[in-house]
Amino acid sequence: MATRIDGKAIAADVRVNVAKAVSELPSQPTLAVILVGEDPASQVYVNSKVKQTQECGMRSLHNVLPANATQDQVEAEIAKLNDDPEVDGILLQLPLPKGLDADSAIEKISPDKDVDGLTEASAGRLVLGKPGLRPCTPSGCVILAKRALGNDLSGKNVVVVGRSILVGKPAALLFLAENCTVTIAHSRTKDLAAVCREADILVPAVGRPQMLTGEYVKPGAVVIDVGINRIDAPERGEGKTRLVGDAEFDSCEAVAGHITPVPGGVGPMTIACLLQNTVLAACARRGWNIPDILNS
Amino acid sequence: MATRIDGKAIAADVRVNVAKAVSELPSQPTLAVILVGEDPASQVYVNSKVKQTQECGMRSLHNVLPANATQDQVEAEIAKLNDDPEVDGILLQLPLPKGLDADSAIEKISPDKDVDGLTEASAGRLVLGKPGLRPCTPSGCVILAKRALGNDLSGKNVVVVGRSILVGKPAALLFLAENCTVTIAHSRTKDLAAVCREADILVPAVGRPQMLTGEYVKPGAVVIDVGINRIDAPERGEGKTRLVGDAEFDSCEAVAGHITPVPGGVGPMTIACLLQNTVLAACARRGWNIPDILNS
Repeated sequence: MATRIDGKAIAADVRVNVAKAVSELPSQPTLAVILVGEDPASQVYVNSKVKQTQECGMRSLHNVLPANATQDQVEAEIAKLNDDPEVDGILLQLPLPKGLDADSAIEKISPDKDVDGLTEASAGRLVLGKPGLRPCTPSGCVILAKRALGNDLSGKNVVVVGRSILVGKPAALLFLAENCTVTIAHSRTKDLAAVCREADILVPAVGRPQMLTGEYVKPGAVVIDVGINRIDAPERGEGKTRLVGDAEFDSCEAVAGHITPVPGGVGPMTIACLLQNTVLAACARRGWNIPDILNS
Repeated sequence: MATRIDGKAIAADVRVNVAKAVSELPSQPTLAVILVGEDPASQVYVNSKVKQTQECGMRSLHNVLPANATQDQVEAEIAKLNDDPEVDGILLQLPLPKGLDADSAIEKISPDKDVDGLTEASAGRLVLGKPGLRPCTPSGCVILAKRALGNDLSGKNVVVVGRSILVGKPAALLFLAENCTVTIAHSRTKDLAAVCREADILVPAVGRPQMLTGEYVKPGAVVIDVGINRIDAPERGEGKTRLVGDAEFDSCEAVAGHITPVPGGVGPMTIACLLQNTVLAACARRGWNIPDILNS
């Protein structure tokens, strides 16, 4: 029976370290969040980011544009924040209202303030192994794997299932930078179960509820489940739903050595890594040393 | 006994297609090559590129800076070519003389003219699956694999051995874009031979002469050998040397289905892909349709 990896507790640890790091800095880093429109889910996410930013001792700028904002207005807001020397990180809350081009807007964020790690330059720096801001969710996956197996992941076989630009590909590159042997599998992969059973660390990131059963897991492996899928849960009452991962939890838990639950696994790590990126961006921009606690 | 993949002949085919494509364009694309100093090997490479550019019907600009050129002078030359509307591709011949920062200079090349595919933006576009200029040697590997197996590589298991920014990582991303299941192996990989024997397409790119023997090859697999290593060849006479790949040719040839020789395999493809990139850059910059022959 696998040990559960408590993403909520580990994310809280990361935030404590971020707060300690912030307290050692010459001044407060600032994270600016841009919300376009009034999508209720986005408002919840943004409020959560603002709250956690402030709890870590950082300054939060919360910029709201109307739902009918034009592309030019969104990009002008980004340009203003790029030019503001007090702003260390810029986050454009996605999705944008229909008619706006998110890719084009993201590309306007200065790579040095791109705390989501989504720009071409950030992706390029990741491939080229140059210093830069790494995407948050994949960074969270690496931290969780290290909590399970120790800091040295060298030589571990990692299988990432899914090749999205938000998770699959950057996760593969981040585990590669940890000296893992990395396989990227996907919908075209032949005998996916056999490929997955080679993994010491299995990272399902496809968005298909409970697709990977225990048959896909090598005994003792670490399962870092990135999927967050809402499914019907009639057992909880009519019309009820619940969240599940890409891994079928019970059968995987029976085989794995460590496994992240959904919810409460990878999910909470994303904002924690965003906060950490904001400190890293501030240090790089302002020429500060990175506090030791973030290097551990 | 494996079929030999004739890189020289395939590169010639690519050049013929590039020349046909050029003849269909409204005007001549231009490739600018910058050579700093008088390194004899670099002069040979540059002359070869200039000659092949012209043979394909394109215009070649050959810019030579003295060996004692400063970083500012190199970057000013790049800036001038970036601003020149007639220039479609810019190639900075590497290595640069000691004291110059190649990374910094490359980063000054406009991504739209980065026909070597080496800038952060080009690498980022590759990860993000956006249109852009792809690195030449890895592109050549994909073409060679397609010549052996047909254009649809979907579902093939690819193992890239080596994770360099010039070859290993971009090759992995390019085969991933062809819907292959891709594993990146390297010096820290455990039981490398077993990992390699899973490959339908094996791409050694480590720069270690004859490191991969037939034991690393699945019967019938395609071996695309990127390594070019010079070793002593006393059998050819005192002080003589010869070129070998990262694969031990004879033992691999006995097991593989297809294999590239060294020399005459991947090597000739690099310049051919550079020429193709110059046409693609010209089309993208000038709003021309890409001639069909380059899409085939």
